[in-house]
Amino acid sequence: MVDQPVCACDLMLFGASGDLAQRKLFPALYQLDRAGLLASDSRVLAIARRDTDTAALRKALLARLEEQIPEPEFDATVAQGFVSRVEYLELDFTDTDGFLVLNDWRHPGNQLIVYMATPPSMYGVIARNLRAGGCCTERTRVVVEKPIGHDLESSKVINDELAEVYRESQLFRIDHYLGKETVQNLIALRFANNLFASQWDQNHISHVEITVAESMGIEGRWGYFDQAGQIRDMIQNHLLQLLCLIAMDPPSDLSADSIRDEKVKVLKALKRITPDMMAEYVVRGQYTSGTSEGKPVPGYLDEEGANKASETETFVALKAEIDNWRWSGVPFYIRTGKRLPEKMSQIIIHFKPAPHYIFDPDQKHLANNKLIIRLQPDEGMALKILTKDQGLDKGMRLRQGPLELTFSETFDTDRIPDAYERLLWEIMRGNQYLFVRRDEVEHAWRWVDQIIRNWHDSGEPPKRYAAGTWGPVASIAMITRDGRSWYEDV
Amino acid sequence: MVDQPVCACDLMLFGASGDLAQRKLFPALYQLDRAGLLASDSRVLAIARRDTDTAALRKALLARLEEQIPEPEFDATVAQGFVSRVEYLELDFTDTDGFLVLNDWRHPGNQLIVYMATPPSMYGVIARNLRAGGCCTERTRVVVEKPIGHDLESSKVINDELAEVYRESQLFRIDHYLGKETVQNLIALRFANNLFASQWDQNHISHVEITVAESMGIEGRWGYFDQAGQIRDMIQNHLLQLLCLIAMDPPSDLSADSIRDEKVKVLKALKRITPDMMAEYVVRGQYTSGTSEGKPVPGYLDEEGANKASETETFVALKAEIDNWRWSGVPFYIRTGKRLPEKMSQIIIHFKPAPHYIFDPDQKHLANNKLIIRLQPDEGMALKILTKDQGLDKGMRLRQGPLELTFSETFDTDRIPDAYERLLWEIMRGNQYLFVRRDEVEHAWRWVDQIIRNWHDSGEPPKRYAAGTWGPVASIAMITRDGRSWYEDV
Repeated sequence: MVDQPVCACDLMLFGASGDLAQRKLFPALYQLDRAGLLASDSRVLAIARRDTDTAALRKALLARLEEQIPEPEFDATVAQGFVSRVEYLELDFTDTDGFLVLNDWRHPGNQLIVYMATPPSMYGVIARNLRAGGCCTERTRVVVEKPIGHDLESSKVINDELAEVYRESQLFRIDHYLGKETVQNLIALRFANNLFASQWDQNHISHVEITVAESMGIEGRWGYFDQAGQIRDMIQNHLLQLLCLIAMDPPSDLSADSIRDEKVKVLKALKRITPDMMAEYVVRGQYTSGTSEGKPVPGYLDEEGANKASETETFVALKAEIDNWRWSGVPFYIRTGKRLPEKMSQIIIHFKPAPHYIFDPDQKHLANNKLIIRLQPDEGMALKILTKDQGLDKGMRLRQGPLELTFSETFDTDRIPDAYERLLWEIMRGNQYLFVRRDEVEHAWRWVDQIIRNWHDSGEPPKRYAAGTWGPVASIAMITRDGRSWYEDV
Repeated sequence: MVDQPVCACDLMLFGASGDLAQRKLFPALYQLDRAGLLASDSRVLAIARRDTDTAALRKALLARLEEQIPEPEFDATVAQGFVSRVEYLELDFTDTDGFLVLNDWRHPGNQLIVYMATPPSMYGVIARNLRAGGCCTERTRVVVEKPIGHDLESSKVINDELAEVYRESQLFRIDHYLGKETVQNLIALRFANNLFASQWDQNHISHVEITVAESMGIEGRWGYFDQAGQIRDMIQNHLLQLLCLIAMDPPSDLSADSIRDEKVKVLKALKRITPDMMAEYVVRGQYTSGTSEGKPVPGYLDEEGANKASETETFVALKAEIDNWRWSGVPFYIRTGKRLPEKMSQIIIHFKPAPHYIFDPDQKHLANNKLIIRLQPDEGMALKILTKDQGLDKGMRLRQGPLELTFSETFDTDRIPDAYERLLWEIMRGNQYLFVRRDEVEHAWRWVDQIIRNWHDSGEPPKRYAAGTWGPVASIAMITRDGRSWYEDV
């Protein structure tokens, strides 16, 4: 895990005119260049079907970078240098002969990276055409984006197509959550701190909460989103990845497969949610009109392009249980939704109270420590502990206070890198530990598919919640039945 | 432990013209009055040999309070009301007949509190004269100050004299460290937080440091201090009390005797330091000239009134071991001294690292969590944890950061009460849990006596250290031999 120097890379970027490339990948590459983390010979081949040329692309790219990169981070000289690394190739991805030129472009001494920023339906054809064009070496690294299918079966089809051409060790499946600094920090936090590591089990933890809340609605993606829904769009990947990082057994080293083996063990141990469990374990919601940041907003069915009969969920809360030695009896309450009151992601570890309580009886409800890991905003963490309340008339009254660490305040950090910067850099270094292995994808689908099947079989529509609220009341009822509540910082 | 209303008290203050009464007790009583914690009928009888009267005493007291109490806390009306509670009695403490008037002064319905702010040699005679004068009820509470003797035998004499007249349950032996909010907080911290409670043993803690550093020198008390030395003046009481609060087993409730029983168990389990252990376990120092706060200061032997041949120690560092199940193999490194670089008291719990280490080998030395409890200055605590170092080029590099809680910043605390306010209030409420029981005093002396005896028997003089340094280098060598170092916040 010690930093390796990055060798020169030739990056073929399929889908270069798409949203992901333009919004995330080019700015991330610029930042890597600015940080001196691109080898001087590294190059980018932007590949798309659009009729343009290198000169025009560079000009447009430069203008866009100037717009996208915040003032103090934009350096005209660096940007100029960066765009001069980029060339354009107009290509129909189904045109096998067209791929022949790719082999001329690449420098054989450079590490070849193929980034498929395209719909997953194109992965197979691009892979096969690359092979046919001779651009498929043992050393090629291939990057693909979610969604890997919409269920277990369709993910297998996509993964099989890729596996036909590439070995698993060449494949970098992105879940951009794994590129977030605060998510990677979970590994350091858990395994470098014995204070936490030694208590990270059912003996010491009562339950875990994971919340990924979005305040935005559909933002013009209605058609795309409606095909997926919140469980496919967020839980199958991001939230289950967070759950894995929190729940996994300690890996014996930091190699990609040691970490991913442990994550897979968690996914395999997830208790299957059967139809009779649904009422107690899963809440499915869809937002109606309400408010967002003080302004009235339409309901999901009234968004632009909406099909009024849609029963797609925009909110899911569920109780996941992990049937293994470490977590038996410790529920993981997870929830995610759109049009919630705020954009906020956090994980809360609720430790069990001490076996015996000797302070004022009316304060007993305070007596469990909580570790709050804030993924955003205010990246950092807080450990809620009890201290003696100060003040003469307080006797031995307790008071809850946070031991607090906010990254931006505690450390002299100029900026937190975007997830894609980290991910692109790890691809260039050949580190797979932040990427999702095929069996992770499949076990996650297997568990999620069951829930989706249960929904279909029951025919029950999603529960409504007003935009700007924390989802259907059933979500609160779900956790309340267990004598608990969703954490609120007060 | 729930707050009880305080009944009216008659406080007889012997030694009212002395330093303790004037510097600490009257201001503390004023603060209690200001906080509304003195019953309206509570009164104070200031008793001393000085020839003055109530009117003059009140006038002088009012003037002194105005000088002592910080501006925003001084309220002329409250102060006026407070001094009107105080009466003066001129009395020779050996004059048995003179005590007869005391019985006239007291209101039989009020709780009688006898505060002996006098040299310990007076405790016996005051107690006997009070009894002879009829001022000795079952309900009387008696407060005495350290030093309770200068060794085990002399402490027994004093305690026997008190025991002749009062039961142990009537005796409030002050160790003012126990009145400090941050010291009391140790009880809340340890027993209300299972995150710490469940790791508070030799399985999880490698060693403990307790430092009580003074920057001042002798400040005109040479003759008094030279009779005692740092081990009697600081370790026998304050530092062993801190050690007990850190090391004690959890009490089954917060009653005075439950807590004190546990503290006594610790003192009894302290490994006796035999002559052959001295070189390894104890460092005795005496300061020479040097600097303090940037100014040159004289050595201990050049202070005003000094006997140039004195071998009294002004610094002690020692390694205490506790022979019980909880602490076997966990050294407590404690040190205290005068003319050290700063005034600072802190306790550091060094947790053991995780059993397996998976991060960069060159960072392995970071891999233990530390809980830093700051008694002063900046009362609060910090938990040193490891997080992932941020920044793109950092891979999975670790970084040590504090989870931080500073009482004054975190809580809306207007002021931290002085130890004597807390102690006086607990005396009025009849709570003995912040006071030292006879067997605590005796076990502490027994352990300390052995060390003093070893010094005498060896005839070895104290090691010199320059004023403004952290004591003799032998103190650093002592902990270095164990592969450790005194904690420095960097």
